[in-house]
Amino acid sequence: MSHSQNGPKLQTVNLVHKASSIDKQWSPRIVAEMNDYQFKVVRIEGEFIWHSHPETDEAFLVLEGELRIDLPHGSVFVGPGELFVVPRGVEHRTASEAETKLMMIEPRGILNTGHEGGERTAQNDVWI
Amino acid sequence: MSHSQNGPKLQTVNLVHKASSIDKQWSPRIVAEMNDYQFKVVRIEGEFIWHSHPETDEAFLVLEGELRIDLPHGSVFVGPGELFVVPRGVEHRTASEAETKLMMIEPRGILNTGHEGGERTAQNDVWI
Repeated sequence: MSHSQNGPKLQTVNLVHKASSIDKQWSPRIVAEMNDYQFKVVRIEGEFIWHSHPETDEAFLVLEGELRIDLPHGSVFVGPGELFVVPRGVEHRTASEAETKLMMIEPRGILNTGHEGGERTAQNDVWI
Repeated sequence: MSHSQNGPKLQTVNLVHKASSIDKQWSPRIVAEMNDYQFKVVRIEGEFIWHSHPETDEAFLVLEGELRIDLPHGSVFVGPGELFVVPRGVEHRTASEAETKLMMIEPRGILNTGHEGGERTAQNDVWI
């Protein structure tokens, strides 16, 4: 089975509504799965920590606000309805000046801080 | 390498703009890749054919308009900013009353008609 027994099935997911219902920032919540991949929504504000995911690319789709992704050679700004894929192994830092809601897509089991660990590491595998 | 040599890299992708620039309906175009998965945008109107993808789930994110997905036990309606995942092997038919722009996410190499073939089968692996 490719679908979690805990997750919603055959339901339409309103991404902004789901993101808005998360109780705190920087806490990704799973809203759907596709094979071994997960769709997560998150509310962010301020700067995250630099990290990378050596094992996977990571996709970001902005729902509301503006996401800044700092990369080794500069920053990209991602607005609503825009998609950006951070290639595997590339150091990056997400940030936003005002609260921003976004969706991330990545394989199941990927931690938000990659292999950095530390206090910014969110609980993984939590559905909303 | 997880990224196509032909595809754009480290670029922000505006999904509606990309979908709007496709020259004809029912012609998915790749806008980004994530590992072995592809993000495709498409403009649709009217009804597609019934088909399934026995090897993979398939995710749909509506950008503009309203997508109807007919399933064996009924239809779901997916609006802008909403996500729906059709599980692997489940027969489905996409449709829309008025032109609708959407993004699909699925593994590289998946045909739009699954294993049905026929005249509605779009050329695969075309970037925009």
